[in-house]
Amino acid sequence: MAVTAAVDGDRLWRSLMEMSRIGATPGGGVGRLALTDLDKAGRDLFVDWCKEAGLAVRVDRMGNIIGRRAGTDDTAPPVVTGSHLDSQPLGGKFDGAYGVLAGLEVVRALNEAGLTTRAPLEIINWTDEEGVRFTAGVVASGVYAGQFDLDFGRNLPDREGTTTLGRELARIGYDGDAPCGGYPISAFFEAHIEQGPILEREGAVIGAVLGAQGRRCYTVTVTGEEGHAGTLPMPLRRDALVGAARMIDGLNRLAFEFDPLPVITTGYLQVRPNSRNTVPGRVTFSVDIRHPDNALLADICARAEALCRTVAGETGLEVEVAEMFGRDSIRFDPDCVEAVRAAAKRLGLACRDIHSGAGHDACNLAQAAPTGMIFVPCKDGISHNEREYAAPEDLAAGCQVLLEAMVARAGVA
Amino acid sequence: MAVTAAVDGDRLWRSLMEMSRIGATPGGGVGRLALTDLDKAGRDLFVDWCKEAGLAVRVDRMGNIIGRRAGTDDTAPPVVTGSHLDSQPLGGKFDGAYGVLAGLEVVRALNEAGLTTRAPLEIINWTDEEGVRFTAGVVASGVYAGQFDLDFGRNLPDREGTTTLGRELARIGYDGDAPCGGYPISAFFEAHIEQGPILEREGAVIGAVLGAQGRRCYTVTVTGEEGHAGTLPMPLRRDALVGAARMIDGLNRLAFEFDPLPVITTGYLQVRPNSRNTVPGRVTFSVDIRHPDNALLADICARAEALCRTVAGETGLEVEVAEMFGRDSIRFDPDCVEAVRAAAKRLGLACRDIHSGAGHDACNLAQAAPTGMIFVPCKDGISHNEREYAAPEDLAAGCQVLLEAMVARAGVA
Repeated sequence: MAVTAAVDGDRLWRSLMEMSRIGATPGGGVGRLALTDLDKAGRDLFVDWCKEAGLAVRVDRMGNIIGRRAGTDDTAPPVVTGSHLDSQPLGGKFDGAYGVLAGLEVVRALNEAGLTTRAPLEIINWTDEEGVRFTAGVVASGVYAGQFDLDFGRNLPDREGTTTLGRELARIGYDGDAPCGGYPISAFFEAHIEQGPILEREGAVIGAVLGAQGRRCYTVTVTGEEGHAGTLPMPLRRDALVGAARMIDGLNRLAFEFDPLPVITTGYLQVRPNSRNTVPGRVTFSVDIRHPDNALLADICARAEALCRTVAGETGLEVEVAEMFGRDSIRFDPDCVEAVRAAAKRLGLACRDIHSGAGHDACNLAQAAPTGMIFVPCKDGISHNEREYAAPEDLAAGCQVLLEAMVARAGVA
Repeated sequence: MAVTAAVDGDRLWRSLMEMSRIGATPGGGVGRLALTDLDKAGRDLFVDWCKEAGLAVRVDRMGNIIGRRAGTDDTAPPVVTGSHLDSQPLGGKFDGAYGVLAGLEVVRALNEAGLTTRAPLEIINWTDEEGVRFTAGVVASGVYAGQFDLDFGRNLPDREGTTTLGRELARIGYDGDAPCGGYPISAFFEAHIEQGPILEREGAVIGAVLGAQGRRCYTVTVTGEEGHAGTLPMPLRRDALVGAARMIDGLNRLAFEFDPLPVITTGYLQVRPNSRNTVPGRVTFSVDIRHPDNALLADICARAEALCRTVAGETGLEVEVAEMFGRDSIRFDPDCVEAVRAAAKRLGLACRDIHSGAGHDACNLAQAAPTGMIFVPCKDGISHNEREYAAPEDLAAGCQVLLEAMVARAGVA
């Protein structure tokens, strides 16, 4: 198949930069937490752009925004792409936004080329991929793909326990009435920055993503006894933070005992009562463990939990280890992966197979439909960081691959 | 000297219980942070009670509330007592409030006995003893005693950096115009629960406090690099929380290397950006180190700082160790200590000498005037905890000792 339409890399870059002004952080990044007023502003801009590009826009029960471009056979299952406009608190300009706006650029390029595909195309902004505000991420795509109940998704509490995902959707005007998923789709493709150092290090422009590693997330609660920092003798203390510190140090050391290395992260920690002059009585922290091998992942998680219990026993503390969510490693559809490789080859772009370290909405979609992902390099592998950066030409290349893969799947009338 | 007037233990207990309803926590404690609306409510109640007891009330530039009972020689330097009505976030009913309301009970008892002292008496509620909301505690008594500048005290920022102590005083209506200190006082006595296990363990009802241990407080900031929890390989990480955890664990182990044992506490810790899916880029935590021996304290602090720098070097992190405040160990005035011992002996109360593990407003006053403290037991030595408890009869005994010591100092006309 010949090149059907050319994406405009400058236009894609300008859209990314315009979107990144919404929630811009002093350090040059983006803080656009899901279902905040800033997220609403980002959504509104995306909806405007969809309408300008002639897409029919609908919002589903999980607040996912779907822009649809009719096909010549409009009853055929659509070819779908998308990612997310929400970000980490101190995130970058590209994580998520790239995949949404690359989908939009595909549509703009096809419009300019006057080309209509046989199957319809859909561009989706998935709600709350990051899972910062609510207790789990990638839930809206999970409901769409039939992995979670709609009620579960809408009732997710926020971290402070003061509201729910459904109430926040209503608050910002994105509590849509379209059904969330439940219709056949031909394929799902997601373009994303790699968020790791491999493509850059090996001089590749395109990553054909084979799958994603397995992940288990825990919340650990350590309970001791509060006391006065000046008067409670050291031997009598049951200091929850000292226990938590030993656990976090131990979990980090544990990671290096396995080959290939897992990643083990404590990103969130809260001390109670968090006062300089009081021995902490309770500490809550997250543990996130990922590995491509499901059997080894299970082993690591068992060792991690045992480590927390051992430390608690040694320090006279109580510990509760609650699994919050987990997912086995997944493999993407071979045809979709090959479609990415083939497009890169036709375009003369250096391409290599790669595994995803991060979870993505595509991991949910893979349970329901043929799915593939396209990675492009990001500078120094840095992501979830205000310094996250991707080169305009790499972003354009990934977008062109996305266009080719989608058009090949949808067919040309 | 004979007993001059008898305090009413029931009335003291009822006042303590009534005060403890302001900011009562579900766990049976008190959360009445300095200069909040709850603190204002506690202050208002104290002012009402002072006026009912015939005291002349003034508020000084640091918001300290002073209730004055005239003496027959009203130009004589007053005998002063007091403590604080603010509390920890999850504090108890007695820490601070006891010393304020014991002072009030002394006045009520003298009123009932129709007894006027030669020198005037002053009962003081010191502003923000606990130092939870603002960046340092016992500052208002420090300004009163001439250890800190008034501007320093009034400009103290709150933890979020959104307001200052002075602005919060004005907000709750306690930005008084009386000078803060600067006048001679005859002596200062402070009644307080021990906040440690010694009196209870040894069957003593009264502690004649010899002095307080030295204290150094630091804020440690550990800086690494944020990254994606799923994709940033372990060997490339500069995880600020892993570094902080190793420091906190190490500081706890360090304490046990010294004899007699110091206390070393990290009570406050904040993670940035504090998101489950992001490797922490920055962690800030408090380190509080106390020991009765000033030379040994300096040695421990040097070792603690070196430990933080060593861990930072090993983990590729940057660390900043900032000393926030410090105080050498202090000794109270021998005559004041003896006045407490003598009163306990006259009353037939088991008394022992004791060192204070905690800092108190009395430690500031000791720099400016003859000062003593009276400790009473608290159950299991527990304080800065909702379960903090002291027996009504012990509180009454300490209050009677306070009355005797104050009257002995002030003289009877």
